[in-house]
Amino acid sequence: MIKACLFDVFGTLVDWRTSIAREAESILSPLGIALDWPLFADAWRDQYQPAMEEVRSGRLPFSKLDVLHRRNLDVVLAAYGIDHLDEATKHALNRAWHRLDAWPDVAPGLAALRQKVLLAPCSNGNISLMVDLARHNGLVWDAILGAEIARAYKPMPAVYLACADAFDIAPEHTLMVAAHSSDLAAAAAAGLQTAFVARPDEMGPGLGEVAPSTRVDYCVSSILELAQIL
Amino acid sequence: MIKACLFDVFGTLVDWRTSIAREAESILSPLGIALDWPLFADAWRDQYQPAMEEVRSGRLPFSKLDVLHRRNLDVVLAAYGIDHLDEATKHALNRAWHRLDAWPDVAPGLAALRQKVLLAPCSNGNISLMVDLARHNGLVWDAILGAEIARAYKPMPAVYLACADAFDIAPEHTLMVAAHSSDLAAAAAAGLQTAFVARPDEMGPGLGEVAPSTRVDYCVSSILELAQIL
Repeated sequence: MIKACLFDVFGTLVDWRTSIAREAESILSPLGIALDWPLFADAWRDQYQPAMEEVRSGRLPFSKLDVLHRRNLDVVLAAYGIDHLDEATKHALNRAWHRLDAWPDVAPGLAALRQKVLLAPCSNGNISLMVDLARHNGLVWDAILGAEIARAYKPMPAVYLACADAFDIAPEHTLMVAAHSSDLAAAAAAGLQTAFVARPDEMGPGLGEVAPSTRVDYCVSSILELAQIL
Repeated sequence: MIKACLFDVFGTLVDWRTSIAREAESILSPLGIALDWPLFADAWRDQYQPAMEEVRSGRLPFSKLDVLHRRNLDVVLAAYGIDHLDEATKHALNRAWHRLDAWPDVAPGLAALRQKVLLAPCSNGNISLMVDLARHNGLVWDAILGAEIARAYKPMPAVYLACADAFDIAPEHTLMVAAHSSDLAAAAAAGLQTAFVARPDEMGPGLGEVAPSTRVDYCVSSILELAQIL
């Protein structure tokens, strides 16, 4: 019996690649910068796991993802040879992560699921980032859970367990939903049930995971489909 | 400029006294127990501050309010000489705190405020308790903040500051709303703006605070009135 659903957000609920490409273009192209914007988004996202690994390894104290994104932006801008942006522009660009668009099935799918179970993000994104994404996309959560309340980054088991504990629901009655097998494998190892949702275009057309590479309890093509089968 | 409102919950948004009296009667009177139910609610609530003081003083590690309520229930039952309740009954009684009714202005008031600013509880109640009260009363929050994310109890300044920080909003742009002067004085000392909402019947008819005994930025008689003046 599932009493709560936890959601990965980047890629699973929101299309970070298209959104970051759009936001970067809207901020940087008026400054005379012309790039392959989706590749710029990829380059920024490529710094994501290495930055969190600094925290997971203990080399860096826990820092909100906004802070890591901002450090990563400096790395990416340097790699592109862009060295003339002022601090306000870099801040505005970093806030692009707060304006990512949800995949079209997400808002109606979550609304349907919320009739049945408790819902929270279990993302590595910080609370204010999740709050802004919810407002931007009209999502209603019961709570904002995830890395910031656990002060650890997925796939550390502490993150999944902290979310279930915050809801006071046993891990085996909690469903982790993600488009990434690695996330679901870690959640399953922590005792949660798991649902894979396919986002085949997450990394660019046809470049997302189309099927899980780990054993999962549910496998769906949208959040609406998950709401129908639960 | 106010960008977020934080709310005390027990007494400010929900009528704990009438609700606990009703829930206790509904669980205990079928067992042949007859009490003055509002006084039973008062007796339970009287253990609230002493229990949190054990945590604030460092004598007890941080424990969720559900855990403190459960310990306090044992104290109150012993004082009443009620020694024959089984664990399931005591658990059900403890969950009464998850079923408190909001004052009538709260749901429409929060809905109106949410058109203007971010909203979260900043309560000593734990996350799951806040989640259940929101569901029970049809309240929509942007996040569930408060004691559990700070791992400290109000009026420790860390609680107010952790909530503002989670929203990434400066304390001076954050409004703490409460029916209790002591809560507002602590929030103001931490740098937040403050709003007093009168709940004259919180402790029983005519026994709540009718006016603040500390300097506040706003003074209203309902959450709807707060929404109108912000």
